[in-house]
Amino acid sequence: MPQAPFVPVIPAGGSGTRLWPLSRRARPKFLLDLTGEGRSLLQSTLERLVPLADRPPIVVTGAVHAAAVREQLGGQERARVVAEPSARNSMPAIALAAALVERELPDAIIGSFAADHLIRDRAAFAEAVGIAREAAEVGYLVTLGIAPTHPATGFGYIERSAVDGADASLDDTPLPPAAPPAAAALPAAAHPVLRFVEKPERESAEQFLATGRFLWNAGMFVVRASVLLDELAAQIPSLAAGVREIAAAHGTASSQEVLERIWPRLTAISIDHALAEPLAADGKVAVVPAAFGWDDVGDFAALARQLRENSSAPGPSGTSDPPRDAPDVRVLGSATVDAVSSRATVYGSTDRHIALVGLDGISIVDTEDALLVLADEQAQELSTLVARLDQQGLGRLR
Amino acid sequence: MPQAPFVPVIPAGGSGTRLWPLSRRARPKFLLDLTGEGRSLLQSTLERLVPLADRPPIVVTGAVHAAAVREQLGGQERARVVAEPSARNSMPAIALAAALVERELPDAIIGSFAADHLIRDRAAFAEAVGIAREAAEVGYLVTLGIAPTHPATGFGYIERSAVDGADASLDDTPLPPAAPPAAAALPAAAHPVLRFVEKPERESAEQFLATGRFLWNAGMFVVRASVLLDELAAQIPSLAAGVREIAAAHGTASSQEVLERIWPRLTAISIDHALAEPLAADGKVAVVPAAFGWDDVGDFAALARQLRENSSAPGPSGTSDPPRDAPDVRVLGSATVDAVSSRATVYGSTDRHIALVGLDGISIVDTEDALLVLADEQAQELSTLVARLDQQGLGRLR
Repeated sequence: MPQAPFVPVIPAGGSGTRLWPLSRRARPKFLLDLTGEGRSLLQSTLERLVPLADRPPIVVTGAVHAAAVREQLGGQERARVVAEPSARNSMPAIALAAALVERELPDAIIGSFAADHLIRDRAAFAEAVGIAREAAEVGYLVTLGIAPTHPATGFGYIERSAVDGADASLDDTPLPPAAPPAAAALPAAAHPVLRFVEKPERESAEQFLATGRFLWNAGMFVVRASVLLDELAAQIPSLAAGVREIAAAHGTASSQEVLERIWPRLTAISIDHALAEPLAADGKVAVVPAAFGWDDVGDFAALARQLRENSSAPGPSGTSDPPRDAPDVRVLGSATVDAVSSRATVYGSTDRHIALVGLDGISIVDTEDALLVLADEQAQELSTLVARLDQQGLGRLR
Repeated sequence: MPQAPFVPVIPAGGSGTRLWPLSRRARPKFLLDLTGEGRSLLQSTLERLVPLADRPPIVVTGAVHAAAVREQLGGQERARVVAEPSARNSMPAIALAAALVERELPDAIIGSFAADHLIRDRAAFAEAVGIAREAAEVGYLVTLGIAPTHPATGFGYIERSAVDGADASLDDTPLPPAAPPAAAALPAAAHPVLRFVEKPERESAEQFLATGRFLWNAGMFVVRASVLLDELAAQIPSLAAGVREIAAAHGTASSQEVLERIWPRLTAISIDHALAEPLAADGKVAVVPAAFGWDDVGDFAALARQLRENSSAPGPSGTSDPPRDAPDVRVLGSATVDAVSSRATVYGSTDRHIALVGLDGISIVDTEDALLVLADEQAQELSTLVARLDQQGLGRLR
C-alpha cells in the first residue's frame, strides 16, 4: 500500500483541432460533454481522481480558460486551478504543479492525467494508480501504459523490459544500464521501461504488438514531486529553478509578478522529451501495464467509436453491426435526426431537423456558424481544413 | 413547315419530395434555380418556348403557387397563368389549357412541356417541336421521345414502330392495327408509337435499349387542341365536357364560380393513362425521337450529375474525374465551402461555413430549418424520410 500523500495534477490544454467545430479555441475538448453523460471530459477526469486524492487535484490550464474551468469544477474545495499566462507545453505545467505540491507536502506523490481522455473502468484505473504510487515511492518516474488493442499509428509507444527477462530491444537502441538500485523494490505489476517511441508507421506498430512488450503511451505520469523536480534540475536546470521560484512566491503579494516574469522564459517542452525519454535511458522509468478502456478521443473516428461502444447496439438481436438498411445513428446534442439506411454520428447544437440518407461512417457537426460533414476513415485530415480557416479570414470560427 | 398556330402549355406542378429540403411544398422544384444560371426551371422553360409560340404560353399551376409563378414570369404579355383550385393530375390541367386555346384558335396546336425539366440544346429542341407540330397537324397525338443514354429505371419508355418496318413488339402485347389513315402523311422524322411502358425493371430496360426502338417518355405532348379534346371526349366524356364548359365561361362574370363548381369533379388522371396509352393502341400516337440533353432532375443524384456536366471539370488536365484527393465540390447557393478529398454537391442557403472531409458522392442541403446529408447512390430513398415528416409533427418543414 502506498504511504506518501497523493495529489493529482490535471493539465487542461490542447487545441483539439481534430474535433472542430465541436471544439473551438474558446471551448476546447476538455470542456465538452463528448459522451452524452451530462458532464465534460474535465469533470469526468476530476470525478475519477478525487476519490484517490489526499489533497484537491490541481488543474493547470490556460489563463483564457481559467474562468470556464473554475465554473465547471465548482469550488476551491474540489480542485485548485492554476492559470498559465501562456501555453508552454506540458513540462512547465506539470513541473509548476509539482513545485506547488513539493512546497506544501515535500514527500507527496503527484499523478498527472490529461483532462480530455476517456477512461471506462474506474476501478481498474484506481488499481493501476495505486501500483504506480508504490513504484513512485521507491524513486521511479512511473507511467501507466495502455495494453494496445490494435496497431495504432496515432499514439506513441512504451517498450518495457522483456517479460521473460531477456532485455533485448527491438532495434539497435542501446539498452539501458542494468536495473537501477531500487529495481528490486518495484511492485510486481510494474516493469522497467526500455524506451519511449513516437507515433510509429503501421509496419512498426505491427511489429511492436507482435513482441508483447509495447504499450500505448497515454501521457500519464506518477512520480514523487521532489524526484520530478530534482531530475528536471539535472536535465534543464533553469526550468526546475523557475517553477520552484514561482511556487515559493505563491500566496505572497508578489505571486503574480513572479509568475508573469518567469513563466515566459521557461523552456517550452513536453514531459516526454524533457524527462521521460532521458530518464528511461537511465533506467529510472517504470510502467504499469493497464487495461481500463482508455481513449484520447483524438478525432471524430475515435469519438464515433466511443459513442458506439458506450451505448448498447440497437435492434432486437443485440449485435453490434446492424444491417446497412437499419439506421444506426448516434446523436450527441439537441438535434432531431431522422435517417434511412445510415451509419452516422451527429453532433447537433441547433434546432434544425437533420435528415440522413444512405450514409456509411459519416460524422456531422451542426453548429450555428459552421457545419462539418466528415468521413470517419479520413478523420485525421480535418486539421488541414481547420489550419486554413485563418488564411481564409475565418479565424472567428476556430 | 407547320401551318397552324402554336401555343405552348406548361403544367407547373409536382411536389418534388426527392429534392427536399431544397424544394418545399411552398417552393416547388419549378420555382428553383437548380443550375446556378440565375433563373428558375420555370423561367428556363418559358425562355425555351416563347420563341416558338404564336401566342403567350399558358402556365397551369396550383392556386397556392399562382402568385409566385406570376412574379417569376413577369407580366401577362409573356405568359398566361391559369390557377387550378386543386391538383387533379396532368390530364385536367392540360385539357383545360387545350379548351382555352381551342375556344380562341380552333385549329391551334398545343405543346405541353413540364415546367421543371432541364434541356440543354435549345436548337435541337426547337427542331423536334417543329417536326411534332407537322405530325400534329395531320391528326396525331405526338410525343417527343428522348434517345436513351442508359437503361434507366426511373423513366417510362415509348416503343416506336420498328426501324426496319417489321412491327413486332417485344412481348405479347397485341400489335396496334395497321398504320392509321394519315400515317403516310407523317414527317419522315416521326414514327408511329406501338405502346407506352411504365418505369421498367433493370432487365427490361436493358432489353429495351438493345432493340433500338425504345425512347424515354419525357411527358412532352404536341397535339391539335381540338383533337385532344375530341379524343378525350371519346375516352372520358365528362372530363372533356367539363374543361370545355370552364373554357366557355372564361372571361365572363361566372368564370370563377364555374371553375370552382366543375374542377373538383374532373377525373384526376394523368395524360398517359387518359389519352396516350389508349390512343397508342389505336395507332393514333406518333413520336419524334430527339436528343437535346434532357433530364427531369428527379432527385439529388440527377442534380449532382447535371451540375457536373454543366460546369467544366476543375484541374489543369480538364478531365472529368479528378483524383480522389483533389476536392471536386459543386456549390449552389451562397454557402462558403472548404473541402479535403471530397466529391460532393452542396446547396447552401445559410451563411454558415461548410467543411467537408473525405466524402465521395454526397449531397448536402443546408437550410435554416433543415439539413440533409445524402449519399447520391441512394437518392431515391429520400422520399421515405420526407413522407414521415408529417407523422413526426414536422409538417412545417415540408
